[in-house]
Amino acid sequence: MKIQPRTLSGFMELLPKQQAMMETMMQTLRETYALYGFTPLDTPVIEASEVLLAKGGGETEKQIYRFTKGDSDLSLRFDLTVPLAKYAALHYGELAFPFRRYQIGKVYRGERAQRGRFREFYQADIDIIGDGKLDVANEAEIPAIIYRVFSKLGLERFQIRVNNRKILNGFYGMLGLSERAGDIMRTVDKLEKIGPEKVRALLVEQCGAEEEQAGEILRFIGITGGSQEVLAALGDYRGRSELFDQGLQELETVVRCLRDFGVPGDHFAVDLTIARGLDYYTGTVYETTMLDHPEIGSVCSGGRYDNLAEYYTDKILPGVGISIGLTRLFYVLNEQGMLNEAMNTAAADVLILPMVEDLSPAAALATRFRDAGVRVQLYSEQRKFKAKMNYADKIGVPYVVFLGEDEIREQVVACKDMVSGEQTKLDFSGTLERVKKGLEERRTGRVIKG
Amino acid sequence: MKIQPRTLSGFMELLPKQQAMMETMMQTLRETYALYGFTPLDTPVIEASEVLLAKGGGETEKQIYRFTKGDSDLSLRFDLTVPLAKYAALHYGELAFPFRRYQIGKVYRGERAQRGRFREFYQADIDIIGDGKLDVANEAEIPAIIYRVFSKLGLERFQIRVNNRKILNGFYGMLGLSERAGDIMRTVDKLEKIGPEKVRALLVEQCGAEEEQAGEILRFIGITGGSQEVLAALGDYRGRSELFDQGLQELETVVRCLRDFGVPGDHFAVDLTIARGLDYYTGTVYETTMLDHPEIGSVCSGGRYDNLAEYYTDKILPGVGISIGLTRLFYVLNEQGMLNEAMNTAAADVLILPMVEDLSPAAALATRFRDAGVRVQLYSEQRKFKAKMNYADKIGVPYVVFLGEDEIREQVVACKDMVSGEQTKLDFSGTLERVKKGLEERRTGRVIKG
Repeated sequence: MKIQPRTLSGFMELLPKQQAMMETMMQTLRETYALYGFTPLDTPVIEASEVLLAKGGGETEKQIYRFTKGDSDLSLRFDLTVPLAKYAALHYGELAFPFRRYQIGKVYRGERAQRGRFREFYQADIDIIGDGKLDVANEAEIPAIIYRVFSKLGLERFQIRVNNRKILNGFYGMLGLSERAGDIMRTVDKLEKIGPEKVRALLVEQCGAEEEQAGEILRFIGITGGSQEVLAALGDYRGRSELFDQGLQELETVVRCLRDFGVPGDHFAVDLTIARGLDYYTGTVYETTMLDHPEIGSVCSGGRYDNLAEYYTDKILPGVGISIGLTRLFYVLNEQGMLNEAMNTAAADVLILPMVEDLSPAAALATRFRDAGVRVQLYSEQRKFKAKMNYADKIGVPYVVFLGEDEIREQVVACKDMVSGEQTKLDFSGTLERVKKGLEERRTGRVIKG
Repeated sequence: MKIQPRTLSGFMELLPKQQAMMETMMQTLRETYALYGFTPLDTPVIEASEVLLAKGGGETEKQIYRFTKGDSDLSLRFDLTVPLAKYAALHYGELAFPFRRYQIGKVYRGERAQRGRFREFYQADIDIIGDGKLDVANEAEIPAIIYRVFSKLGLERFQIRVNNRKILNGFYGMLGLSERAGDIMRTVDKLEKIGPEKVRALLVEQCGAEEEQAGEILRFIGITGGSQEVLAALGDYRGRSELFDQGLQELETVVRCLRDFGVPGDHFAVDLTIARGLDYYTGTVYETTMLDHPEIGSVCSGGRYDNLAEYYTDKILPGVGISIGLTRLFYVLNEQGMLNEAMNTAAADVLILPMVEDLSPAAALATRFRDAGVRVQLYSEQRKFKAKMNYADKIGVPYVVFLGEDEIREQVVACKDMVSGEQTKLDFSGTLERVKKGLEERRTGRVIKG
């Protein structure tokens, strides 16, 4: 009896063409993160539950894949931040701070299954961890990384939105609303969805704000425009809260360095409505939105935090980090038709079709190509010529090489460009040059279309 | 109260320098597999238990991480072969056969914890799957892949050992011992450990062989020497078993193509004692041993099988594949002092130390370097000069750039080679050229020493 093969719902499993795109995305992330001096890290998928759930409680705990094996209470990681905290605390003495690491890995959350929700998904995180303190310059560098990552992936129309939690907390402090700041930020977060008047009502009815305070809040989050305009408007609040002033100064640093870090002004905005959760972040916060798909929400978020590993160590480890939900991003890009289907995703550059029984000449030719860095598949099945060409079409290989008696005797290579149909008979070096040039020309496309 | 941070025993978690080496190994595998036209694949770590354990029973099942979540009976994959079988059966209609895939991923086995045994470990697999049939040429190509992989990793003294299950099964058939072939192969496998006389005794006492048959078996597995000698000696058995003759012909094909596939004769041997398990493999089988560390056993093994996905589909999917136990290999290399500690594993090529308060010039310089593909870390902490240089030493960065008022005014870059100590003051292009040349020179080392 056969078992029906299936893949669990909420688990992404891609066909080769899409997987090739996903790999290109991951390689782009690795290379880009490396340009900023981040070191790659890998931690176990399974941790002791006691360690992973040190923070405890909350919505997360219900979603966790937790089980016992022998005497051990184990859990699958649900993000890459908690394992980083454990890693930094555990290996503190062996790390150099600031410690910059990137990690691309799978995490697990047993969410309710629905379209576009994943239970196993890749996160791609970077974090900079300081020992005791960490200069705001690191926060200023993050938008440059986000900008380069998405540009290299091929995305054009996106915006990095930045705010500073000290500005928000300082402002609510001025109003005497510090204790309700959490509720207020949650409410303000609904601005785009429900509009200012409903926000005003909620602020008064549910957050304990006076009418006047609600007006102040709406005026404050209504500050929009170019970065310089927003900074100027914020300047009017200066001198009333030390925290606010500090946050404003940090925001000014971030904005001032933008151009030198290579971020064009039109890809950046100060957005006072961004808060990113309640407790964790304490300074600059980041979101990244696709301008043509605001409904998707942020595709790269993060911020500054004051103490990464407080559950594991007395050491104060402040940091700043961002995360890309890679699996969801890939899913969304695919759904929106934004993946570049024209990209060369073939696993081989050249398919060699031997036309004689002795495999040796074809093997030798394949080896020469491979020594020169060309990806070669040797097709050695006993099939009709038409079936072989169908295979070449199906795998989308750019070049097919035919190796028959004539070519072997004349020491030439018959090579067909599968797109143009053009066929050449050149010596090996001539063929290699042609193939390499052709591959270079095909390599221009990015994973994401515009 | 703090939770003691820890990593589960049997789970590898590397420090940055070693992780960088591991990443280099993985990247080498990806690039090498790609040269042979293998497409990257990724499948879930979690599968339905019913699917993953379709084959059922055996030693494996006890080791599996199995648990329930909601109504689902789930298991973590324990190898990459079963998920491949599922994938090939599930997506059969959408794949082009022969289907060549590589997969590097974590697998889980709850083995008894002991030094050098891992419960979470990477496997790096390649497989070529045919639809209905698969030419022996694919088996002939595998040693070339193994050879290139280990050579690129830097290993020099290793040997790829090959046998053919048809030769073994054919030979035992000649002796009328087909039904005991499994027991016999298990016994013969102990040859190196216990010597020929004990093997002879076991063959008679436990495997039901007559004295004469035991003598025949010992003579047979005693056939050693160069590939051509072994093939010649095997030729004497020809004509007595169709299966044997077919196996010998396949082995001859594998040996004949070796040189053309780029495998030097001294890195290859026919070894009639290799069997690789009982049921699964049906043709060529491979093992790879490190000549200076035979005690480690095979570091890359695999073989030809007749039907990959019989538990999931009626389609006959023969294939050939090999697997590297990457985590264990890395562990062993480290234990044996074979990792190249001199390799440049720094996460950044250049560390920029800004000597003025305004971050802009340093940010602009970092951006220029990064645009040119140089990995740059901007060090912006307010620390004493000595502490900054200690940091540079600790992360092992090859170059440090000092950017003070003088350099900014004169538009030059002060750059120190941290190995030679040589310091230059050149314009940006001059510095870039020097750095790139220096990095190229450092890039020669491989991960494995000899």
